[in-house]
Amino acid sequence: MNISRLKKISNALAESGLDALALNPGFSLLFASGLHFHLMERPTVALFAADGQIAIVLPELEMAKLANLPYEVKAFPYGENPKTWTEVFRNAIKHLDLDGKKIGVEPLAMRIFEYHYLQAAAPLTTFPDATETIASLRMIKGEKEINALRKAAEIAQNALTATLPMIKIGVDEKTIASELVSQLLKNGSETPLPFQPIVSGGPNSANPHATPTERKLQEGDLLVIDWGARYEDYVSDITRTFAIGEIDAEYRKIHEIVQEANAAGRAAAKPGLPAKVVDIAARKVIDDAGYGEYFTHRTGHGIGMEGHEAPYMRADNERILEVGMAFTVEPGIYLPNRNGVRVEDDMVITENGAESLSTLSRKIVVLG
Amino acid sequence: MNISRLKKISNALAESGLDALALNPGFSLLFASGLHFHLMERPTVALFAADGQIAIVLPELEMAKLANLPYEVKAFPYGENPKTWTEVFRNAIKHLDLDGKKIGVEPLAMRIFEYHYLQAAAPLTTFPDATETIASLRMIKGEKEINALRKAAEIAQNALTATLPMIKIGVDEKTIASELVSQLLKNGSETPLPFQPIVSGGPNSANPHATPTERKLQEGDLLVIDWGARYEDYVSDITRTFAIGEIDAEYRKIHEIVQEANAAGRAAAKPGLPAKVVDIAARKVIDDAGYGEYFTHRTGHGIGMEGHEAPYMRADNERILEVGMAFTVEPGIYLPNRNGVRVEDDMVITENGAESLSTLSRKIVVLG
Repeated sequence: MNISRLKKISNALAESGLDALALNPGFSLLFASGLHFHLMERPTVALFAADGQIAIVLPELEMAKLANLPYEVKAFPYGENPKTWTEVFRNAIKHLDLDGKKIGVEPLAMRIFEYHYLQAAAPLTTFPDATETIASLRMIKGEKEINALRKAAEIAQNALTATLPMIKIGVDEKTIASELVSQLLKNGSETPLPFQPIVSGGPNSANPHATPTERKLQEGDLLVIDWGARYEDYVSDITRTFAIGEIDAEYRKIHEIVQEANAAGRAAAKPGLPAKVVDIAARKVIDDAGYGEYFTHRTGHGIGMEGHEAPYMRADNERILEVGMAFTVEPGIYLPNRNGVRVEDDMVITENGAESLSTLSRKIVVLG
Repeated sequence: MNISRLKKISNALAESGLDALALNPGFSLLFASGLHFHLMERPTVALFAADGQIAIVLPELEMAKLANLPYEVKAFPYGENPKTWTEVFRNAIKHLDLDGKKIGVEPLAMRIFEYHYLQAAAPLTTFPDATETIASLRMIKGEKEINALRKAAEIAQNALTATLPMIKIGVDEKTIASELVSQLLKNGSETPLPFQPIVSGGPNSANPHATPTERKLQEGDLLVIDWGARYEDYVSDITRTFAIGEIDAEYRKIHEIVQEANAAGRAAAKPGLPAKVVDIAARKVIDDAGYGEYFTHRTGHGIGMEGHEAPYMRADNERILEVGMAFTVEPGIYLPNRNGVRVEDDMVITENGAESLSTLSRKIVVLG
């Protein structure tokens, strides 16, 4: 947590015409405050005013988290009786003089739960969507953040490499996923993992968001593994596709196409160009090969403290790529009820193009 | 997932005067549908109508999850362009004829994000708080659910037992937490873990919600370990407190008091009595010993698919305990800037009283 971030936040709020930003437990709160809170049935909301003042409403029993902070924050703790909570929120709003003002919120993070407390405490206030204001800050990664992303990719790659020897015909997806999770932790991933690994073989690999099942690997399967690690609060998100024994010629072909699409997407990423160029370049390879209808999702998403964040690599995204933006390139081809392929890398925009933080070979490896 | 649950849900909706229930990804959706969806920047909302019809708005690429469901559901998939999503929500609302009706929501689970889509699609609809309606169903555990809770406690206990040998003076909290997580997975816990283990030694143990740090265990520390496992979607949540070498006489005394408070809370739990009796019984022991001001939280919370759910063991909770309700009993004493103690068990209400699903000795064990 970098103190200069707080200054950037108050500047960004002022520029967006917001008087404050209200954050509940989640990654933006972690980014802004360095504080790890979790979502629960007691509300925690931090208010960042455009003038730099900070107030936080929180359960009494979480007060210890505020000890030794490198910045000033006015705490509004409450006890166990929910009937007293609205009043505590009202005191925090009063302290920052925010009633009737504009308090930005993040609809993707804030629950109706916290929102209702804010509305009750500040009935004259409007709550505009501040997603872009905070995303624009979170999107540009500094050197320390990029190093953490790189290390998260390295940990993930080491964990997969350690898991490969146990992957063979007859082993089920859940067993592989569980070993991979163990290896992620052993290799230095922090918890919680950014997401539970996807390990999907055969027909399951045709579902881009499959959950590991008890299905055992069979000769001829494609095996999609989509996994990631966390290091100093930053994550990796990588996918590789393997062949189990001898595979169908078409499966080998679609793997080559996806690998080429991945390379085209990575090569297209450059500072000053819109994010859409990455999607367009990767999609063109798959379209030209005649498999366009089987590439059913966007080419990638931003990556940072969250597995999915801005910028999104979509054909309609005009957002200009800037040095320090980090994102995935992950084209895929999914043949319904048959098999699927995805190849995913973690990228960061550099002065001249983009660097791949994940470096594991993208060629199809035969296991089994 | 039990099909009779869907019938119970439509009955409960009708009884609550609700025309439907809207659930976004989370445990209530899992409970109601058996479907594992995750929160992301694309909205997923399932609508359960009081007449038994079900509709679900979801990303196209998640459609495979709806294959082979043991009940009927009308899917409203959408593509990658967010501009098209409101229309898809509108179609789902139209299909179930819900505009202008009452759609219950869970404020603790639903984000402003999904809520705004629902509001835009059904501008004449009201969205009452349906927390109690769904909680009343989730609270009463059937035999299969209790067995899963019991197994989750067993896995957690085995994992801790396997971790104990490495706990000694000089080992830091993070290292212990990481080994415990590994052991949880090895011993059969599903992922994600219900929560990241708390491993807090010395002064850190005085913070009930501490995050593991790099602080090394020292002679004279109390060590609080609060951990849990997941099995078939049900979780455990247990705490034991250890002594590192020779400890202060007062620390030994507060451990005895907390152990006695835990026993009193467990003994007070009986069907037909209000939940508050558990809190009152445990708190009385600590109050009588003169440490009341250092027991800063409620005595427990419900446990099921979530680590924290209804019923809550609070002095003001009049909810009547029923056979099948599961919850924690976890009194504690936290001496600020010194050391703390907590002893937590997972209980289920039986015909005659309550059974402890966690059975690990509660006596203080000296390690180090």
